[in-house]
Amino acid sequence: MQVGVIASVNEARADQFSHRTAIVIDVLRATSTMVAAMKAGAVSIVPAETVMEARALIRPGDVLGGERFNRKITGFELGNSPLEYRKETIEGKRLILTTTNGTRAIMKAIRAENILTGAIVNATACARAAMELRRDIVLLCAGSNDEFAIEDGLCAGLLLDRLESQCQQSFETDDFGTAMLALYRNRADKLLETISQGSAGRRLIKMGFGRDVEWCSVPDSDDIVPRLNGDALTKC
Amino acid sequence: MQVGVIASVNEARADQFSHRTAIVIDVLRATSTMVAAMKAGAVSIVPAETVMEARALIRPGDVLGGERFNRKITGFELGNSPLEYRKETIEGKRLILTTTNGTRAIMKAIRAENILTGAIVNATACARAAMELRRDIVLLCAGSNDEFAIEDGLCAGLLLDRLESQCQQSFETDDFGTAMLALYRNRADKLLETISQGSAGRRLIKMGFGRDVEWCSVPDSDDIVPRLNGDALTKC
Repeated sequence: MQVGVIASVNEARADQFSHRTAIVIDVLRATSTMVAAMKAGAVSIVPAETVMEARALIRPGDVLGGERFNRKITGFELGNSPLEYRKETIEGKRLILTTTNGTRAIMKAIRAENILTGAIVNATACARAAMELRRDIVLLCAGSNDEFAIEDGLCAGLLLDRLESQCQQSFETDDFGTAMLALYRNRADKLLETISQGSAGRRLIKMGFGRDVEWCSVPDSDDIVPRLNGDALTKC
Repeated sequence: MQVGVIASVNEARADQFSHRTAIVIDVLRATSTMVAAMKAGAVSIVPAETVMEARALIRPGDVLGGERFNRKITGFELGNSPLEYRKETIEGKRLILTTTNGTRAIMKAIRAENILTGAIVNATACARAAMELRRDIVLLCAGSNDEFAIEDGLCAGLLLDRLESQCQQSFETDDFGTAMLALYRNRADKLLETISQGSAGRRLIKMGFGRDVEWCSVPDSDDIVPRLNGDALTKC
């Protein structure tokens, strides 16, 4: 099994995804929030690239969620904080979600044979689900402001660690994957500290979202794996 | 002191270098070969982007060196193997050098206030020289085939490790720098093994350049630091 890793949405090319399973990673916070929303009972999540597209997609009973510049969008019911996604707001509903990087990353990977979304909170389950699809894998780190984000790199390394240990055939990654695996192994016992000192982590903490950063830095708190089916993510 | 790290030439923008000291890194093999050439007595090294430019620059007594697709260029006296650069071939001479990535990376950094070339073989001396220039620093990993190369990432991490330990003021890096520092610290005792398994390392070993890979993977075998003065690199 070959596992490639892409450092940011900016660097992704559509042809890198053909015939592969893509795992889209945006730890702070889109792909963590997707797990939180499904855990709270969202039946599906429709990723929308723009605010206008999100508004156009809405049907009665849906919930609109998302952020721009880390803040909830005017008129939307929910922002992009995983802690906002509770049973009373989302259970049994379809979520239309638009975020700066996460949803754009999903669109970038659209030619992949399968698209899963991965985060630190669902890493082991996500690695297992990807293995079961029996294709080569591409990990797409969404990044932040078109640059590499340390939390996405750590998550890629964690996924590689789990993929390597579960893989029964030969396991191969590329140079960037080797680097991310070493990054994770060097910082595995300091995930929260490392993420809190990263560019996006510092920014979120400054804006009062420190509890989000904590929540998103805990490995394997859940085993939900969102998977794209048509235009919506549902549980794998 | 702020130390930024750029993953490959492809991602570098000219404005990232203004008012900074750039350290250009191309471990396999351009910036390692530059150290070897100066150690063997080359008085200066003129980096040329193209074969045509290299040929046009030559003056009586100069030596032409370089590679395309890792092989010596037809009509050139030397290739890009550090082991070829011996006293009898290069002592007291000016070297005109053109390589696929290394020389291109130097040109990319041309707006920097100072340009040094760094490799694993001269890392500690290079970090010290950069510190003495008292500017913020950018580490430019040349990469291979426009992609991140593990040996350049390891060298960036090694340089960050030395910069951090020698820095007397506050030391800051970006998310990618944090990742490279963790990569180096995780693999510090397995540099040759890691580099040999990387994409460029495997390719060079297959072509019979295994001894070059070994030579380039030994930290601090020399304290020569090439620095760009005008159009030529000389000893710092």
